[in-house]
Amino acid sequence: MDMMLKAKEDIKRRLEYLKTCTIANGKGVTRLPFSEEARKAAEYLKKEMEQAGLEAYIDMVGNVRGFLPADEPDSQVIMMGSHYDTVKEGGEYDGITGVVCAIQVADFVKRSGKKRKYALEIVAFNDEEGMMFGSGCLGSKALTGQVDQNYITSLTDENGISIREWMIKWGSDPDKIEELKLNLENVRAFFEIHIEQGPVLDTTKQEIGIVNCIVGLLRCMVTVEGRADHAGTTPMHMRKDAIEIASKTISKLDEFALEEQNGSVATCGFIRAYPNAMNVIASKCEFTMDIRSPKDISIENMKEKAVDLLEYHTDKVGASYKFDTKLRQKPVYMNQRLIDMLKEKCEKHQYQYREMTSGAAHDAMVFADKVDTVMVFVPSKDGRSHCPQEYSSYADLAKATQIVFETICDMMSEE
Amino acid sequence: MDMMLKAKEDIKRRLEYLKTCTIANGKGVTRLPFSEEARKAAEYLKKEMEQAGLEAYIDMVGNVRGFLPADEPDSQVIMMGSHYDTVKEGGEYDGITGVVCAIQVADFVKRSGKKRKYALEIVAFNDEEGMMFGSGCLGSKALTGQVDQNYITSLTDENGISIREWMIKWGSDPDKIEELKLNLENVRAFFEIHIEQGPVLDTTKQEIGIVNCIVGLLRCMVTVEGRADHAGTTPMHMRKDAIEIASKTISKLDEFALEEQNGSVATCGFIRAYPNAMNVIASKCEFTMDIRSPKDISIENMKEKAVDLLEYHTDKVGASYKFDTKLRQKPVYMNQRLIDMLKEKCEKHQYQYREMTSGAAHDAMVFADKVDTVMVFVPSKDGRSHCPQEYSSYADLAKATQIVFETICDMMSEE
Repeated sequence: MDMMLKAKEDIKRRLEYLKTCTIANGKGVTRLPFSEEARKAAEYLKKEMEQAGLEAYIDMVGNVRGFLPADEPDSQVIMMGSHYDTVKEGGEYDGITGVVCAIQVADFVKRSGKKRKYALEIVAFNDEEGMMFGSGCLGSKALTGQVDQNYITSLTDENGISIREWMIKWGSDPDKIEELKLNLENVRAFFEIHIEQGPVLDTTKQEIGIVNCIVGLLRCMVTVEGRADHAGTTPMHMRKDAIEIASKTISKLDEFALEEQNGSVATCGFIRAYPNAMNVIASKCEFTMDIRSPKDISIENMKEKAVDLLEYHTDKVGASYKFDTKLRQKPVYMNQRLIDMLKEKCEKHQYQYREMTSGAAHDAMVFADKVDTVMVFVPSKDGRSHCPQEYSSYADLAKATQIVFETICDMMSEE
Repeated sequence: MDMMLKAKEDIKRRLEYLKTCTIANGKGVTRLPFSEEARKAAEYLKKEMEQAGLEAYIDMVGNVRGFLPADEPDSQVIMMGSHYDTVKEGGEYDGITGVVCAIQVADFVKRSGKKRKYALEIVAFNDEEGMMFGSGCLGSKALTGQVDQNYITSLTDENGISIREWMIKWGSDPDKIEELKLNLENVRAFFEIHIEQGPVLDTTKQEIGIVNCIVGLLRCMVTVEGRADHAGTTPMHMRKDAIEIASKTISKLDEFALEEQNGSVATCGFIRAYPNAMNVIASKCEFTMDIRSPKDISIENMKEKAVDLLEYHTDKVGASYKFDTKLRQKPVYMNQRLIDMLKEKCEKHQYQYREMTSGAAHDAMVFADKVDTVMVFVPSKDGRSHCPQEYSSYADLAKATQIVFETICDMMSEE
């Protein structure tokens, strides 16, 4: 099929250029927001958008935006995009593939010459990863009105340089940040193609994931305070062992997640003990819990079970604990009509697909509360992401591009 | 009672001087082997031994030794002592109290003017703690023939300076190290008074602990190798979570210890995870197990249960683990006759006492296999040790001194 061949070739050509927009340390791709590398990528994306027939520009927070008008002025707009920043030493696919596919969709829409009930806006978002300022989704938050003067002043990089200052270096006037806000009632839908960043599609040999939900998230730091004692001379019943208490909670997280039975996950990824010596009972143990679920009640259930255990085991020996919530996000749901339309396209082309949740956050999450939103996942080889080993095939990216293009075409002529 | 008053005063006077033999950082006592501070303490102890009527000298590994001859030449010798080195930023009591009490015992024996069937040798051992060279009990091992050229050459401090080099700085000829070895058949008994370093006596309000066993020890490092994955996008059943696997073992250690029902203890004091990031499943987790028991079979039981769990949980998900034994000591038992004699003295004076195990290693351990050995514990306030808060009362130390003195007196006239 001509279209699929062209999609694969254009996607390949663009990705091969974009992977050179990185600091040159030989370790994957590092393209941080507002960097020289980001500037190079943004200029390239603008040019590619223009070549696809869009009116393109780089906005004041570094988003690259391309616009294809509707047949009628003042029509609603269908938006589509993903981010072009990367984590440090990340891969060539995360984020940027969604941008490249979006340009491809726009190109196809323009070339089709068909009726356009809606305008089409392609966005390459800046700073989704939150590598520099901790927060992330700067570009999509700015477009949805979640970024104000306080936000850009208070969030700083590790050298204390604020987003505001970076905007000035970028050539923008940060006083106008709030002008970026879109009238979201004017947005008909938001589409995002993204690599899965997990092992599900690769394991099940499916080509397409249609996301129905971006899971909710609780991230917290737990600090257990016990008492340092001699590991040899202190009888078991006289101890306040902070590692023991922590482990009695951590070791149950998998059970708590499985009990929810809806793809909920719970992870302790960070642990640190004090004094952390072989022959000394730990006086303190810090650990994190990262709890995610498509159902908010499941997040609360898992949290409650963990807290109950902490309560029980600290109480029992007279130790104590502190629970510090670092991040809390509610699950957001994708639009069922758009899901159904995409499924129809998969079935038409006999693509192997599944409905699935996204366990990671994405720019689509920022839109989903206010705009009909959907995401399409392509398989990540071995589930790897945020590392140089990240890989998704051009063929899979072309398939995702195709079903989104066809869905948007249907919408363009909807009543 | 005159004798008890004198004991308390002499003990106090000596301890108050010896606590000044420290580096001056204001944090408890730091008196490392072969240091200037150790030299100062050794010279003082030598002088105190001489004033108690002993022939005293500092030997080539830094032990301070005082000798009181028997009535007859070529008699066996009763030895008594403890160590005079400290951990970094330790207390004023660990080790040194046993030295000071031993000098007091010798003083009383000499003053008593009674028959001496045996000679008496007081030793202030060097480098029991193993702070500099990792191993510990250098002084007592040298006297029992466990230190050779290989030992003093291969063990080095953090700057790579070997025990051999430190001996030369100390003014010794390391080529003669093996000459330190005693003829242990000539040693009638070994006594050590030591602070408990645990909470048992302080909690039960008992004044004296008579040690019947120094527990055996297994110290090991476990390394669980899993796989780093995204904490949000990796379903629970597709994970190889190294922290989860580690926690499922660590959280059971207390149960394993309690199941042995003989004062066994098991501790994870050290844990480290990689990459140790909130939102990444741990690829690796290292942790230690410190397992102690008066029964060697209990140590093996606890180890086996831990290994079974590691085996099960790594197998289940295709992860792996490595078990690295760092230290393995068999339990050593004290001499029953000496225990009984000491108990008799406690009963005579109506001292509250208990038989107990020692959960920590001591110089006495080095002798116990070859010589009739016993230890007497004095209470440690709140069980604290190896910290500036360490405290034991002069009154308790005097009581321990008294019962050992009376026991040695009985032996001096035994048939």
